[in-house]
Amino acid sequence: MVAHTDTDPELLRDLTDEEARRAMPLKWGAVAAHELPAWVAEMDYATAPVVIAALRDALEAGVTGYPALGPGGELGRAYAGFAGRHYGHEVEPDHVLPVCDVTAGIRLAIDVLSDRAPIVLPTPAYPPQLQLPDIAGRDLVPVPLDPDAPDAALDLDGIDRALRAGARTVLLTQPQNPLGRVYRRAELEGLRDVVSAHGARVVSDEIHAPLVLPGAEHVPYLAISGTAGHAVAVVAASKAFNTAGLRCAQVVTADEATRDRLAGVPEARNDSWSPLGVVAAVAAYDHGDPWLSALLARLTDQRTLLCDLLAEHLPLARMRPLEATYLAWLDLRAYGEDDPAEVVRRKGAVRLAPGHDYQPGLAGHVRLNIGTSPARLTEIVRRMASALDGD
Amino acid sequence: MVAHTDTDPELLRDLTDEEARRAMPLKWGAVAAHELPAWVAEMDYATAPVVIAALRDALEAGVTGYPALGPGGELGRAYAGFAGRHYGHEVEPDHVLPVCDVTAGIRLAIDVLSDRAPIVLPTPAYPPQLQLPDIAGRDLVPVPLDPDAPDAALDLDGIDRALRAGARTVLLTQPQNPLGRVYRRAELEGLRDVVSAHGARVVSDEIHAPLVLPGAEHVPYLAISGTAGHAVAVVAASKAFNTAGLRCAQVVTADEATRDRLAGVPEARNDSWSPLGVVAAVAAYDHGDPWLSALLARLTDQRTLLCDLLAEHLPLARMRPLEATYLAWLDLRAYGEDDPAEVVRRKGAVRLAPGHDYQPGLAGHVRLNIGTSPARLTEIVRRMASALDGD
Repeated sequence: MVAHTDTDPELLRDLTDEEARRAMPLKWGAVAAHELPAWVAEMDYATAPVVIAALRDALEAGVTGYPALGPGGELGRAYAGFAGRHYGHEVEPDHVLPVCDVTAGIRLAIDVLSDRAPIVLPTPAYPPQLQLPDIAGRDLVPVPLDPDAPDAALDLDGIDRALRAGARTVLLTQPQNPLGRVYRRAELEGLRDVVSAHGARVVSDEIHAPLVLPGAEHVPYLAISGTAGHAVAVVAASKAFNTAGLRCAQVVTADEATRDRLAGVPEARNDSWSPLGVVAAVAAYDHGDPWLSALLARLTDQRTLLCDLLAEHLPLARMRPLEATYLAWLDLRAYGEDDPAEVVRRKGAVRLAPGHDYQPGLAGHVRLNIGTSPARLTEIVRRMASALDGD
Repeated sequence: MVAHTDTDPELLRDLTDEEARRAMPLKWGAVAAHELPAWVAEMDYATAPVVIAALRDALEAGVTGYPALGPGGELGRAYAGFAGRHYGHEVEPDHVLPVCDVTAGIRLAIDVLSDRAPIVLPTPAYPPQLQLPDIAGRDLVPVPLDPDAPDAALDLDGIDRALRAGARTVLLTQPQNPLGRVYRRAELEGLRDVVSAHGARVVSDEIHAPLVLPGAEHVPYLAISGTAGHAVAVVAASKAFNTAGLRCAQVVTADEATRDRLAGVPEARNDSWSPLGVVAAVAAYDHGDPWLSALLARLTDQRTLLCDLLAEHLPLARMRPLEATYLAWLDLRAYGEDDPAEVVRRKGAVRLAPGHDYQPGLAGHVRLNIGTSPARLTEIVRRMASALDGD
């Protein structure tokens, strides 16, 4: 594990509003000038200098054409190094396959590896994952979390029932978005047993793995024994390093036959990642640890600040423990609004992500992005309170 | 139309071998040090300075996150300007929808718009287009060109037969790759009539449109009256400006209902383009005309040089008139090799694209990329002759 240091202002730099508006055409471009954006999963920090420097070099060299094809290479080597240092997980570099982004990687894995049968998805879940089964021609079987459950553990009984009824793939997101949950080793072993018993498959989206906060530990699903034959992981540097637009995620396998099936698809199924995304990922994996430590220190501070702010301004809010990610899942049902995100936007000029986007039919929840400055987070919660209290 | 000037060395700069190897990990990375690459469609020229400058600015501003969603915007405005200046074609900016790349755009159009029925594809064709119908769950109906046909006109009778037999989509590539053919207005009107008679659709891949050489004129399919209701075009700045890896193509519609169907898909179906790709496309469309003129002047010179070199060194080669693109289609059957690309690579250390990749079963043809320096093109043809003559 890499030790965390206090936030180093030389490393992690807050963007001004003006800079953020220029850098993030989606997060900041889709809100009005008087609104604060706390919705889509991007952070209001300057991109890591080591990543920008590598991209600058690539750009001056004219790396604007097609990327090299196939698994392994520099990207495989760099990710294997990162997984070894951060998770104690041994990855074979040649088992790392580039894809355009995590959604594309999941779609590839489903299209190529999964039987034509329903797909199980614990919810709340990232909205594109709710859409993917239909796009891949499969039925979605959501396994919803009871909002009053004491913790956000995997519902292994629910997954077992879905597989018993004919589903053949479990789409796992760990660390979980939007719950912020880091699944424990025992839960993952339980999932392995259930999936193995039914001869099913797991696609494990681990894009948030570098963002595990102090107090929790990420266990890659492929680090659990007995998973190599039925699972792939989809990983990326892009969430932790704020480079989602550069278009390079990775599908990781632990089994040669699985790797060969994925690597052997016709080019038109998987050739859309960017060579600049590869450059950014390699730089982040190889040289990004100090920046990542500074980021995690900041997010840990933001987590503490959020708890304090909620206690002071929104005392009826209930928050799932934020073990990873910079996305807090808030139960605001006590404030009596079915769609608190809508109320907060209209009355408080803060854009949150509505909970029903993650779990259709769920009322009273929001996802709040804390990847910003302490001052903005303070203002966001103050505005939320003002909007929900009817002040 | 924009006037062509002689090649301006300040504008169009040839890359050295070393620079090309660094800039193009696919084209140059996949050949040995002693080999010359003339296969994949990238050019050995430095990326246009106006494009690099815009990318540099975006990078320094940290534009590495999600792009803005939806049609229109700066990209729509810029493409509409380019289409007006270069093709005299009026495009509604709000009818221009970003996609990740041309293959993704074609797949989106097929998935969303086309009936579940076979897809007609004139061949030879770009290999990913041969793969796409299967990926989209449709049968492919190739309409092959007779290699002895006097010209490479569209086979309207063949297309009519395929539609009569149940196909519902025609995948058109114009200008044609690998034939270099620019379809005439009358051919396109003929296609419209055939397609309309069967209530079918057209997806028109026009990625090579900016690369029409003197003597021919590109007519956008959507500029033909009566096509708006049944067609979309997929366009990009990336082929002419050598920025395929930056990941931004555009689907153009001429009909509001079609645009709304494409723009209304779930995010997971179409959200993978890069904001840097958008920046590059806008810079190319807005400010790239002088560079493009210099490029077309160079490619026109290369075309002349190729004809001279073939006459001198490979007099039995037959070449389809190169009306557009930098990809020459050569009939080398007279040299008696089923797979001349393999022979030329083994004996001549030049990597060509084998003809059977474009038209399965076709012997004796190659696609030759002339987007390089006069010196390299001379050496390429010299080596081809040496390999095929058995010297």
